[in-house]
Amino acid sequence: MPDVVFSVDQARSMRDQEVPGHNRWHPDIPPAVTVRPGAEVRVESREWMDGQVVDSDSANDIRDLNLNVNHMLSGPIAVEGAEPGDLLIVDVLDIGPVPQETGPVAGQGWGYTGIFARDNGGGFLTDRFPDACKAIWDFHGQMATSRHIPGVTFTGITHPGLFGTAPTADMLGRWNAREQALIDTAPDRVPPLAMPPEPRDVLAGTLTGADLDRVGREGARTVPPRENGGNQDIKNFSRGSRVFMPVYVPGGLLSTGDLHFSQGDGEITFCGAIEMGGFVDLHIDLIKGGMEKYGVTTNPIFMPGNVEPRYEEYISFIGISVDHENDANAYLDATLAYRNAVLNGIEYLKTFGYTGEQAYLLLCAAPIEGRLSGVVDIPNACCSLYLPTAIFDFDVRPTADGPHRADRGQCAVTT
Amino acid sequence: MPDVVFSVDQARSMRDQEVPGHNRWHPDIPPAVTVRPGAEVRVESREWMDGQVVDSDSANDIRDLNLNVNHMLSGPIAVEGAEPGDLLIVDVLDIGPVPQETGPVAGQGWGYTGIFARDNGGGFLTDRFPDACKAIWDFHGQMATSRHIPGVTFTGITHPGLFGTAPTADMLGRWNAREQALIDTAPDRVPPLAMPPEPRDVLAGTLTGADLDRVGREGARTVPPRENGGNQDIKNFSRGSRVFMPVYVPGGLLSTGDLHFSQGDGEITFCGAIEMGGFVDLHIDLIKGGMEKYGVTTNPIFMPGNVEPRYEEYISFIGISVDHENDANAYLDATLAYRNAVLNGIEYLKTFGYTGEQAYLLLCAAPIEGRLSGVVDIPNACCSLYLPTAIFDFDVRPTADGPHRADRGQCAVTT
Amino acid sequence: MPDVVFSVDQARSMRDQEVPGHNRWHPDIPPAVTVRPGAEVRVESREWMDGQVVDSDSANDIRDLNLNVNHMLSGPIAVEGAEPGDLLIVDVLDIGPVPQETGPVAGQGWGYTGIFARDNGGGFLTDRFPDACKAIWDFHGQMATSRHIPGVTFTGITHPGLFGTAPTADMLGRWNAREQALIDTAPDRVPPLAMPPEPRDVLAGTLTGADLDRVGREGARTVPPRENGGNQDIKNFSRGSRVFMPVYVPGGLLSTGDLHFSQGDGEITFCGAIEMGGFVDLHIDLIKGGMEKYGVTTNPIFMPGNVEPRYEEYISFIGISVDHENDANAYLDATLAYRNAVLNGIEYLKTFGYTGEQAYLLLCAAPIEGRLSGVVDIPNACCSLYLPTAIFDFDVRPTADGPHRADRGQCAVTT
Amino acid sequence: MPDVVFSVDQARSMRDQEVPGHNRWHPDIPPAVTVRPGAEVRVESREWMDGQVVDSDSANDIRDLNLNVNHMLSGPIAVEGAEPGDLLIVDVLDIGPVPQETGPVAGQGWGYTGIFARDNGGGFLTDRFPDACKAIWDFHGQMATSRHIPGVTFTGITHPGLFGTAPTADMLGRWNAREQALIDTAPDRVPPLAMPPEPRDVLAGTLTGADLDRVGREGARTVPPRENGGNQDIKNFSRGSRVFMPVYVPGGLLSTGDLHFSQGDGEITFCGAIEMGGFVDLHIDLIKGGMEKYGVTTNPIFMPGNVEPRYEEYISFIGISVDHENDANAYLDATLAYRNAVLNGIEYLKTFGYTGEQAYLLLCAAPIEGRLSGVVDIPNACCSLYLPTAIFDFDVRPTADGPHRADRGQCAVTT
Repeated sequence: MPDVVFSVDQARSMRDQEVPGHNRWHPDIPPAVTVRPGAEVRVESREWMDGQVVDSDSANDIRDLNLNVNHMLSGPIAVEGAEPGDLLIVDVLDIGPVPQETGPVAGQGWGYTGIFARDNGGGFLTDRFPDACKAIWDFHGQMATSRHIPGVTFTGITHPGLFGTAPTADMLGRWNAREQALIDTAPDRVPPLAMPPEPRDVLAGTLTGADLDRVGREGARTVPPRENGGNQDIKNFSRGSRVFMPVYVPGGLLSTGDLHFSQGDGEITFCGAIEMGGFVDLHIDLIKGGMEKYGVTTNPIFMPGNVEPRYEEYISFIGISVDHENDANAYLDATLAYRNAVLNGIEYLKTFGYTGEQAYLLLCAAPIEGRLSGVVDIPNACCSLYLPTAIFDFDVRPTADGPHRADRGQCAVTT
Repeated sequence: MPDVVFSVDQARSMRDQEVPGHNRWHPDIPPAVTVRPGAEVRVESREWMDGQVVDSDSANDIRDLNLNVNHMLSGPIAVEGAEPGDLLIVDVLDIGPVPQETGPVAGQGWGYTGIFARDNGGGFLTDRFPDACKAIWDFHGQMATSRHIPGVTFTGITHPGLFGTAPTADMLGRWNAREQALIDTAPDRVPPLAMPPEPRDVLAGTLTGADLDRVGREGARTVPPRENGGNQDIKNFSRGSRVFMPVYVPGGLLSTGDLHFSQGDGEITFCGAIEMGGFVDLHIDLIKGGMEKYGVTTNPIFMPGNVEPRYEEYISFIGISVDHENDANAYLDATLAYRNAVLNGIEYLKTFGYTGEQAYLLLCAAPIEGRLSGVVDIPNACCSLYLPTAIFDFDVRPTADGPHRADRGQCAVTT
Repeated sequence: MPDVVFSVDQARSMRDQEVPGHNRWHPDIPPAVTVRPGAEVRVESREWMDGQVVDSDSANDIRDLNLNVNHMLSGPIAVEGAEPGDLLIVDVLDIGPVPQETGPVAGQGWGYTGIFARDNGGGFLTDRFPDACKAIWDFHGQMATSRHIPGVTFTGITHPGLFGTAPTADMLGRWNAREQALIDTAPDRVPPLAMPPEPRDVLAGTLTGADLDRVGREGARTVPPRENGGNQDIKNFSRGSRVFMPVYVPGGLLSTGDLHFSQGDGEITFCGAIEMGGFVDLHIDLIKGGMEKYGVTTNPIFMPGNVEPRYEEYISFIGISVDHENDANAYLDATLAYRNAVLNGIEYLKTFGYTGEQAYLLLCAAPIEGRLSGVVDIPNACCSLYLPTAIFDFDVRPTADGPHRADRGQCAVTT
Repeated sequence: MPDVVFSVDQARSMRDQEVPGHNRWHPDIPPAVTVRPGAEVRVESREWMDGQVVDSDSANDIRDLNLNVNHMLSGPIAVEGAEPGDLLIVDVLDIGPVPQETGPVAGQGWGYTGIFARDNGGGFLTDRFPDACKAIWDFHGQMATSRHIPGVTFTGITHPGLFGTAPTADMLGRWNAREQALIDTAPDRVPPLAMPPEPRDVLAGTLTGADLDRVGREGARTVPPRENGGNQDIKNFSRGSRVFMPVYVPGGLLSTGDLHFSQGDGEITFCGAIEMGGFVDLHIDLIKGGMEKYGVTTNPIFMPGNVEPRYEEYISFIGISVDHENDANAYLDATLAYRNAVLNGIEYLKTFGYTGEQAYLLLCAAPIEGRLSGVVDIPNACCSLYLPTAIFDFDVRPTADGPHRADRGQCAVTT
């Protein structure tokens, strides 16, 4: 087991740890620890909402979430000798849920997938599913089951949803400007188009007072992925993967968190994946001048590992960039196309007895593949979604007999 | 070898075949053949441009393509007993290039990938690559190499780019209306937002005279995927896959064509994939009332086969929905995110000595994976592109030594 | 399609071809053709028994087979510049069944798996299954089904069972001596321990008269694999594989044949695999001095391709080197261990309603994996057999409910 | 994390644990714990030699091993309601090395592979490699490297080498009888043909005095796999696998141990795999009457998991059942064929600069595949060994340039 360079007591909030993490991007957040190139380290992680969600059959906790606190990140980790223009090599050696005996925290043998309420977060299909819902997943080694979505067992593709280096002050300024410009196009939209800096509930490591206030005013929210990586929610950052992170500030200042026991491509419910606290073991190294050497101007490069769960047979759904309700075309809009593929998948699963909410939660959590199949055939993009058939304990393939419909219960809803 | 129910003499144009195919969608195009449920049949196919592109080192043929002729489809095939609301089961038993000894037609041991000129077709990156280019690919069994993109050998993921059933007259009317509405938002755009019906060069099987004229005026172009399947360009419709096609008109009227020796997710250059003529062997069956049974209102469902080329190691590029040149955000725009992932991949490959055009053509033709990784983290969608490392005859992974840069020639350009 | 350098008219015996092949190993068999390094060629192949087996429901043809004729090989192919000590690079570009319209020959849309009678060939379990049996397999693209073994569909792992270079005269002498020495330990055994040279029915290309007589007296039978490759029956020599063949005589003199539509590890019934005629496309090249460079003193080296059929879930059977009937131990005997694993698999399949013969034929033909799991734990070797569950159209996994037993018919038997 | 039902303090010998395990098979060893069907439990495990091997550069510890102590097993676990004729369902939920901070024990971040000396254990190639050797492997998450075999990194296929239920007294008697009969054929052989009961260093849970003496006299050694499973050394019992264990005595009495971080098929060096202490998490259930239902008379059945490390490209070696040194044939001897395949692999690796001992140790520890390719082609069995190329940090494939030979150091040897 590598040295623990960032430790978390899961019985306490991230803000009450000996060395707290952070929940905004800002170059002035001081490193929690400094490591040398070649180090192998363990980073412990708090689940992204800092423990607001409990193992229960009510979705009230999801409905009432304080969204100002996320994501509770571990770090920053400074790397000796890292300079702007370098690439950090970050190997994900291992990753897992909370290993120690502690309280009933997400990651201690269970995790959750939620549907955000439209009024508090929203999600990919918030117009269809505006109410908060939840599914609790129980972990059995690398397998997950849910009492809220019976008939399904799958192997998790475990990964950190979030992986990022610190931006420069200049980058940060440009992020804030461009996101505010987007918000300004529809400032009253619910859910919002983007999330501006939010001083409430800010956490910036050991910073306090005026420094903390400044991070609150300037710090970028951790929700979107950006040039520094960030909340990419790429399910394939799993065990054995190698990430090449651009370095923008001295030391690189790497942070991670938002661990997912499993997630499908798209993380479609937003509250999202199977969320958990836990740990991630990293090997950290450096390619000096790597950004120029390899033409990297923005975003990480990575290589997935070779122990991702294997599935051979998939049932696949297709969507195109047409608003079918209004018979309107959107020009090569892959987001809309994927949305339709997801909706087609949900309608399919409903014929087996699942509710729409269960199907939506399942497609968020299970290791589905979402592909941009065609993005040039004007005017319609085509996306496809691949659902492994082996995760069901009944035959989910189309046959002449029709679907095996059964009472499949219900997910956790609000009261 | 199953019975040939649609035969093509590759020395002649599709319009000069004994039973010609068609290049528009229209319910009145008469079936070329009728088959029974349970039939196993061979369908021969003309390459999508009906032979306009030759095996040469000039891209003038791409630049000067007559885009009115595509796609030259084989069919329609009527299925006995198929009624609206049924699902056709279509198994892709086998698929391959032109097997017989004939003239120098695409598919006879070679195929092509092109970049359309901005003024004649355009493509995913037409603003970056506005000029016509071409790569010729030589087939070696299931492997492909190109003198225009040296250093690369890969196994093709062979599939029909296009697979569709006939629309009803009502559907056709709605397609035309919604696409015209889109065109009307920018009628002079180059390239256009969509392609309206085009009477010139129309082909509708054996129809002639007023019937043909009507198809010319009303028939939907075959370029976009739509509710009937169509030009989905899903690379995973490969050997062994099973497709469930919605039936909208009596007999179903299945057509196929646009065979691809290989293609990456997105078919990003538009003129696109590795185009070839050839054959596809199908098993055809029926699920009566399948659309309602399985909640299918639009688009096919399918199950990929189990002989897709396997790769274990990938170098992966990430893009987010930011216009980096103008520092502007697009709200959860997966198309833009994938565009950036592709651009990041191209810049990476350029550091090894490829031109941008070569890299663009390569990412179109090789079996890359394109994934919608995150589509909820407002405001930035995140897409990722996975390029198998084993297709290169040099080490394409990032190392401390930097890339192995070499003179890698050039693709075919215009003169 | 590459040039056909060895052509077969499937309506005629191998001995009546324009350029006949051969059915013995001997350095004096003259090359049928000479190719240059770098050549891509097509070799047509006759099924190994030269057409003695027909598509029928009787196994009399298997029972009465003339075993002197096998294997009917295509070649030899001389490679320009190949000298003893070199390695031939042989890429299996493609492989397939008889493509042309011809008579009802094995490979023309169907193939067969047989159980040799104990008195005429025998096999791995000949003491348990002493009578001739047969299953006819129908080809559907890359899939196979059998009316004699209902409930099963699988993707073939197509390969040449036999691939060899010519031995030197000295090697040939040693082969004959060592095999005769083995025969002499039990000269009357049925089935025999080995097969000595057999002048009857010998074929040696264009040789006639005294030359042919000599090959008949001296030529090694093609049944066993030897230092030159030969009848290795390695199922993984499939599409895309690359073989490095040792060169023992000038020109190398490569021969191939015994094409298999599919086979499980071990080819356990001996008459074996799914036998067919067809073609194989090869790319041939040379590593000068490759044997010494890479420490090759005997046997080929090879690299499998990347389009082998993929299965994810297996039901696996285990065997150890114990004679359970007599409660006797054999010291680290992997053959006996695998035999027990096969027997355990057969007993398992019988609980679903298959006859033992059907199960035996299935395990020979389907793409099962057979592994040497432990060969050191004195005194018991441990072997394991992996049967893909997806090939069954019922649930073949153990459950609390017990097996789904059904009437599953019978294979072809003798009359 | 499931309940720990068998705990091990890695700082102490298995015999000094609060509840000790056992190192012989005997029905009278009392259960260490009783669990209910449906339970999920953690079993901690001591490395098989109870800590005799240390992390050092000398192989003296291997040379001097006391072989009477192995294997130090955890258990037996009694399952409520299990009766003879049932099948236990045992799911391997998770498995890993020693997680807690403790002394320098195998499993605490490292493991070892050894070559037994011929005079003290022997192994598959003991005639070629008669001296004790050792390689220490360092764990990096799921990856392993060794300072004794540089140039190699691979993902471990982690599994328990040993998994067994208790035999009846009658079975035990027959085991002892048949193994003694084998020993009696060559009682002075070095290494021995089998290992008879050995009273020295016997451990039988909490048994003492006359009971312990009896187990010492009667208890079967744990080295070979037998009808109860036992030391099967099947590398595919990895995470996510499901094993169906025959129940011979009331409660089943399941024991496990001999954890392997990784192993190739065959575990060819005997002291073998990458040995470690650690833990295994199990789900345990029951199929009443399962043995008769599924035709199981001996040996477990199992289904491998879906997170085994994936490799796409292999370099493969072939062996046939010929004693090449003496030009003698062995009739369909798969053990000899695999031995030759291993020897061919070792000779190949030596051309890159490895010593024979390094190559031998590597082929034991890395996730190689060993297949029984042909076992019917009289007189020669054919086995093949598949070595993943991606585990090497140099190009290990044959090329015209010849191998990249380098100084690759040496494994640990004796002094």
